[in-house]
Amino acid sequence: MKLSSKNIETRLDTVYDAIVVGGGMGGLSAAIYLARYGLKCLIVEKGKGRSLWMQDLRNYVGLDPETPGRDILNHSTKQAIEWGADHLRGYVEEVTDEGETFAVRVKLGKKDSTYPIFRSKYLIAASGVIDKLPPLDNMQNVYDYAGYTLHVCMICDGFDMWDQKAVVIAGTEGQIGAAFVLNWFTPYISVLTHGLCEVGDEMKQKLADHGYPLYEAPIAKFHGENHKMSGIELTDGTLIEATTGLINMGSIYHNHYLKNIEGLEWNGENLVTNDMAQTSHDRIFALGDLKQGLNQVSIAVADGTLAATQIWRNIRRASEPRKWDENIAQVTTSV
Amino acid sequence: MKLSSKNIETRLDTVYDAIVVGGGMGGLSAAIYLARYGLKCLIVEKGKGRSLWMQDLRNYVGLDPETPGRDILNHSTKQAIEWGADHLRGYVEEVTDEGETFAVRVKLGKKDSTYPIFRSKYLIAASGVIDKLPPLDNMQNVYDYAGYTLHVCMICDGFDMWDQKAVVIAGTEGQIGAAFVLNWFTPYISVLTHGLCEVGDEMKQKLADHGYPLYEAPIAKFHGENHKMSGIELTDGTLIEATTGLINMGSIYHNHYLKNIEGLEWNGENLVTNDMAQTSHDRIFALGDLKQGLNQVSIAVADGTLAATQIWRNIRRASEPRKWDENIAQVTTSV
Repeated sequence: MKLSSKNIETRLDTVYDAIVVGGGMGGLSAAIYLARYGLKCLIVEKGKGRSLWMQDLRNYVGLDPETPGRDILNHSTKQAIEWGADHLRGYVEEVTDEGETFAVRVKLGKKDSTYPIFRSKYLIAASGVIDKLPPLDNMQNVYDYAGYTLHVCMICDGFDMWDQKAVVIAGTEGQIGAAFVLNWFTPYISVLTHGLCEVGDEMKQKLADHGYPLYEAPIAKFHGENHKMSGIELTDGTLIEATTGLINMGSIYHNHYLKNIEGLEWNGENLVTNDMAQTSHDRIFALGDLKQGLNQVSIAVADGTLAATQIWRNIRRASEPRKWDENIAQVTTSV
Repeated sequence: MKLSSKNIETRLDTVYDAIVVGGGMGGLSAAIYLARYGLKCLIVEKGKGRSLWMQDLRNYVGLDPETPGRDILNHSTKQAIEWGADHLRGYVEEVTDEGETFAVRVKLGKKDSTYPIFRSKYLIAASGVIDKLPPLDNMQNVYDYAGYTLHVCMICDGFDMWDQKAVVIAGTEGQIGAAFVLNWFTPYISVLTHGLCEVGDEMKQKLADHGYPLYEAPIAKFHGENHKMSGIELTDGTLIEATTGLINMGSIYHNHYLKNIEGLEWNGENLVTNDMAQTSHDRIFALGDLKQGLNQVSIAVADGTLAATQIWRNIRRASEPRKWDENIAQVTTSV
């Protein structure tokens, strides 16, 4: 059921089997499985996730390559709700481990916000990441190209950059390294730091060895039209010809609500999980971009399958077997 | 490109980056990724795989729940070919490890077969399993219900059996155990052995404790219409009322072509793989139902992503960096 401030009262006494933080591809996969295992689950979706920005999804089996993320999210949310999942648009502020249950405090509404608390036996962290973009005064100029010809994922979109003149936009010296991998798809690479970091002599030499020009002045503006980039103008007046680019400035992780929970093993900002997407906390699972591994839709979707299945196994194994109801006859006849 | 006996000549001298044995969901996912990494791959598909039998796919994010397996396979095959994969309808008879390459011998055509040999650096085993069905004289009677109301996968279809009168059809005493898991979805279970195994006293007692009738006579016929089961008739004349069922008779593994390859670690008929779907042989990957883990489309699709990505990493890391072509100017201007 779609929940909102108008009907959440009906769910405040519910102990969900699982609350899924994040209604992206991984969270929706988990919810579809949980619902089809007959388990009660609530998806809390803040909106504006990474997959909403995808203008196409070209490497996911079964979908038209041009399908935008927004359409898949809408379709899959409907899919999850139809199988029985609850879905709430809200922002998970805090999760408290109460031992048998989690208390999940959700902020509802931007104005006159309310802060209902929902409870569940298991928690699925599927709130993902969002890519850092170069901070320009006019962010609309960035949005005009990001997700179209200015990419954030080389695995997803390297193919579409083949032999084009490309820029790599990095925020740290380490992030410049992506240029040497992007070389597989195109050797025509210029590296931009947007004035965000110092570049040491060793890296400068490596870039020179590869023939990659380095531009350290901040970006003033992306040029192009209809989401098709043609070049980048820097604040020092330089105009670099480029029809595509890779932004490699790291990610913002939506994992703040897990930071006070004891017993979670982290690797940087990623959660360490086992082969069933279970974290080191036996009632918390982590999917997709929040855990270690490839940031790919197919991986997040499989993680959702794994987490939901393990939660079902745990709950089922702890349950008493159901009995054949005496009122329902076991009918056999002879033919 | 779609290959057939008419145009394979053009590919007999090719050394593919990878040959994918099996064009189901996992193999197609691998091929889409490989092609989009710019790698040369060949899918060899024998037809009649497990997903072809699926009448719907209800738990895969982004697809309408009623989409039949046949449609998804056709769509995804087209998807893979459009990105640049080769696709051949044939049967992989034998794989020989030549050290740097594999020689893959394919049987083409049922009559007047030919046996071309293709070569690749990597091998992706994605040939899956097929479910064993109860052997009746009239197999069409089984096909009329299998995949519709007579299921082979509890994780996929348990939900659709909810509180219905169900049969579990097992071929060994161990396989009867599925009845105690199916109990989660319905407690109204009759167990049938189709006369294939002896059932010991301990299991008989356990079935009695759960209230599950046991029928050891062979199945004569499934009753129903329009793929909707209504009951099962046994050879001893008993008619059992049941509107759904789970066939749990094990699987036939399409892995014969791997049996003579040294260095592969097996767990029964499943290949042991690492977190990138790589087997213990560093140039062989295994996906989906052939490897240990859940037999789910979402898992196979993710496995394809992982295997293709690891192969790309291996090949890329062993390659020389590409150079900026002197004929392509690096254009900057001042504005």
